[in-house]
Amino acid sequence: METEVIKLLGFWSSPFVFRVEWALKLKGVEFEYIEEDIFNKTNRLLELNPVHKKVPVFVHDQKVIAESFVIIEYIDETWTQNPLLPQDPYQRAMARFWARFAEEKLMDAAWTSIWSKGEQKERAEKETIEALEKIEEQLKGKKYFGVDDKIGYLDISIGWISYWLPIWGEVGSIEILDPKKFPGITAWKTRFLDHPVIRDSLPPRDKMLEYFHKRSQEWYSRFGLSGK
Amino acid sequence: METEVIKLLGFWSSPFVFRVEWALKLKGVEFEYIEEDIFNKTNRLLELNPVHKKVPVFVHDQKVIAESFVIIEYIDETWTQNPLLPQDPYQRAMARFWARFAEEKLMDAAWTSIWSKGEQKERAEKETIEALEKIEEQLKGKKYFGVDDKIGYLDISIGWISYWLPIWGEVGSIEILDPKKFPGITAWKTRFLDHPVIRDSLPPRDKMLEYFHKRSQEWYSRFGLSGK
Repeated sequence: METEVIKLLGFWSSPFVFRVEWALKLKGVEFEYIEEDIFNKTNRLLELNPVHKKVPVFVHDQKVIAESFVIIEYIDETWTQNPLLPQDPYQRAMARFWARFAEEKLMDAAWTSIWSKGEQKERAEKETIEALEKIEEQLKGKKYFGVDDKIGYLDISIGWISYWLPIWGEVGSIEILDPKKFPGITAWKTRFLDHPVIRDSLPPRDKMLEYFHKRSQEWYSRFGLSGK
Repeated sequence: METEVIKLLGFWSSPFVFRVEWALKLKGVEFEYIEEDIFNKTNRLLELNPVHKKVPVFVHDQKVIAESFVIIEYIDETWTQNPLLPQDPYQRAMARFWARFAEEKLMDAAWTSIWSKGEQKERAEKETIEALEKIEEQLKGKKYFGVDDKIGYLDISIGWISYWLPIWGEVGSIEILDPKKFPGITAWKTRFLDHPVIRDSLPPRDKMLEYFHKRSQEWYSRFGLSGK
């Protein structure tokens, strides 16, 4: 029997890559991780993901898949142990809905609130808080967003809220995750970051701070004056 | 046994709504269609979709689901006859990947190419053609994007290319779907529009032309001068 090829092309600080890494680890699927330089793309990356030219890229034998949400569903359907999505169609729909919501409404707003200034920053901060309030409501006293108080699809999809978001807040000198305003998310964050699969894989905090500080300055000089 | 409640809240010219309508009809699921005025939103719409305040909204008994891609997967998982997504995980991943690609890369570019002018229009037209070339490659002589030459998830997800896109092109005085450049998509378009489920549900062409002409002028006066 030939050995199965399972590879993940990633970048050390990408929340999209971690999403896939966490899915594989929660399933107990062994894989080879390949670090890509997203500022100086290799032919390997360009050939494997010619459409978007981005990480993560997932390779399973002859099959190549891009886009983190698409990859996670593939992983969940291929290795069926420890299901990430719930079994019930409506609960599955809700998990997919909120994962996309956080991606489209929260992530952009949060990132803009960090690098921008003045009115644009204020507007983005307001949008960030409003999106977080909707996510807070989804927890309703549960330990995890997944069913039966287990870590699942939605937890790993919005997992960046636990570690990336507070670091971004520090970079932008704003407190996004006020524990008084978001007691559910705050408790979830502690629990999520303490999960063995998550805890042992996170990039160092100081390296993240330095990297995102630099990125936020680049964004400000590119978009800050034109108001994006 | 109580009667099942199945409702679709829509708007007559929305390609996102038609996607859901086609899914239900391909499955043979009976439903009540409710027309919403998206320019003057009802309390019903605001209560059923407080997060995005948009159509389509799908109601199944006590369950309410928004976002067309999320709804289609729910329909496919709930009524399992005539599957929309393929069975194979990799083929499922590809269908999801290209559906999102068309939504994120093609739809925005195509719409911008219609209402904008000058350099912005040229850039958007180029992006539209490039995105269509990638979709053309996916057909590779197949009748439909689905497996076994059957209409499926990807066909209905990008179904707007068959009817909306040429109308948009007419509104913007540009030929987007050149049959010589896109023989596969052109043949698919004819086949798709001739499918009984699709053919009998499309809104009138002249009403569509008038509506999108008006919308494109609104967009130009809102975004055209600032360069968006």
